[in-house]
Amino acid sequence: MIDAYQTSSQARVNAALEHLFVAPAPELARLYEAMRYSVMNGGKRVRPLLAYAACEALGVAPERANGAACAVELIHAYSLVHDDLPAMDDDDLRRGQPTTHKAFDEACAILAGDGLQSLAFSTLLDPQLNTLDADTRLQMVSALALAAGPAGMVGGQAIDLGSVGIKLDRTALEFMHRHKTGALIEASVQLGALASGRSTAADLAALNSYARAIGLAFQVQDDILDVESDTATLGKRQGADIARDKPTYPALMGLEGAKDYALELRDQALKALQTFDTAADPLRALARYIVDRRH
Amino acid sequence: MIDAYQTSSQARVNAALEHLFVAPAPELARLYEAMRYSVMNGGKRVRPLLAYAACEALGVAPERANGAACAVELIHAYSLVHDDLPAMDDDDLRRGQPTTHKAFDEACAILAGDGLQSLAFSTLLDPQLNTLDADTRLQMVSALALAAGPAGMVGGQAIDLGSVGIKLDRTALEFMHRHKTGALIEASVQLGALASGRSTAADLAALNSYARAIGLAFQVQDDILDVESDTATLGKRQGADIARDKPTYPALMGLEGAKDYALELRDQALKALQTFDTAADPLRALARYIVDRRH
Repeated sequence: MIDAYQTSSQARVNAALEHLFVAPAPELARLYEAMRYSVMNGGKRVRPLLAYAACEALGVAPERANGAACAVELIHAYSLVHDDLPAMDDDDLRRGQPTTHKAFDEACAILAGDGLQSLAFSTLLDPQLNTLDADTRLQMVSALALAAGPAGMVGGQAIDLGSVGIKLDRTALEFMHRHKTGALIEASVQLGALASGRSTAADLAALNSYARAIGLAFQVQDDILDVESDTATLGKRQGADIARDKPTYPALMGLEGAKDYALELRDQALKALQTFDTAADPLRALARYIVDRRH
Repeated sequence: MIDAYQTSSQARVNAALEHLFVAPAPELARLYEAMRYSVMNGGKRVRPLLAYAACEALGVAPERANGAACAVELIHAYSLVHDDLPAMDDDDLRRGQPTTHKAFDEACAILAGDGLQSLAFSTLLDPQLNTLDADTRLQMVSALALAAGPAGMVGGQAIDLGSVGIKLDRTALEFMHRHKTGALIEASVQLGALASGRSTAADLAALNSYARAIGLAFQVQDDILDVESDTATLGKRQGADIARDKPTYPALMGLEGAKDYALELRDQALKALQTFDTAADPLRALARYIVDRRH
């Protein structure tokens, strides 16, 4: 079921994203092209899917979460563009295609990333994509800014870069991941729930527990796949993290230990949804998919 | 008068900014230190001054514009950090001090800039700094995101980088500057006016004309100073723009032509304020200062 749900989420968010990269003047064509290139690249759209599924879990049509879905994907895309830069991870390929600084140039990639971050906030408030009341929209902006910023995703990137070659313990590794990837995953679920216009405090708390668990499961599984997959399947160099001596769950817990932990996190995620009816099935299917996926 | 006003604006915004760089966890200390270094560097705080002065022009105490003032300065600071990077302008010094990527490292500077952009949006909505009604706060967020983004400041940076070695005519140069520096200057005035909580559409239109004129005057004067000043006064290499064959107003209109144009823009700015009473005197003084300044 998650395949069909992912396909429709992907199509929905891509249709909404597509309109964002029309340069308002010919002088800006290259920048907008670089932003489009960085976003419209066949990405899995996991974060938009989470926003849509959280909105649906509260009984509201997923289209209501279009602003939220676009915004979290734009933040994610900008973080990848900057993460791939020579001064950061120095990656030439992303999903088998040249990274933005390779397809354009480094200055253009820095600016495309910067522009995508601003665009995320503009898009979240785009009246065509978000018709919620003002207070809810403000709550969404604040949540996104916090999750994307130095106390969230950017902070996680900084910790990650600072920990190359350092032996992190599990607490420290978890702290890094909760910032680097967890914060935006939590925001995706929270923004999607807020977009429903009918989330209670109890709903938001339950969905946040779900998001925390799957965010970590996603990372643990990524580490496992990095060890197990080959370059062709994954589209990036095999064992890249280990080669750079970055801390990983398999390195810390052993491969089997990491696999057990991923399953435990999946079960935590499912338990957090126990008060939700079948409308939350896409969220449940995603939790299962995260630990079952092979790429 | 502008000296005293600038001193008090500087002190006010610095006091508000100071609180933003307290790392929420020791792991984030270096990132927050890099952000602090990038912002708390003795900057002139022209954009905060504009926000405060626009708020005062509408008869409201400048403190009400603290959220706006911090937000525009954070956007400005992030743009300088990224602009100084090796892949961009490759500057080692800013105000006579090592640039962020020199004082820290390049990855840290990229992330500090990214974090400052998110922080600008968080800070704009900080309930301690912005207590306006929800609709006005949303209007402020949208205006800031538009001004900072690809259709504003980031777009201007992209045009600027793409125009090295190209002979721009005056229309093209103006188009570049209206994006690169003008958009954020206009947003500073607009956000400050909105922060007053009592701006009419006519007020906003008049203040926008003012901001457009001084934004351009500021740039024309910068180009003039780049030709005339020496390294010691300006804190950056003399004639840096000309050395890189960047288009400038003196190159295009001659030095005297550029000086006349700066004065003409100042007069346009003053004329835009003609319906305002003495509460707008700080804005008037700034318009005069921009074309009189020597650094």
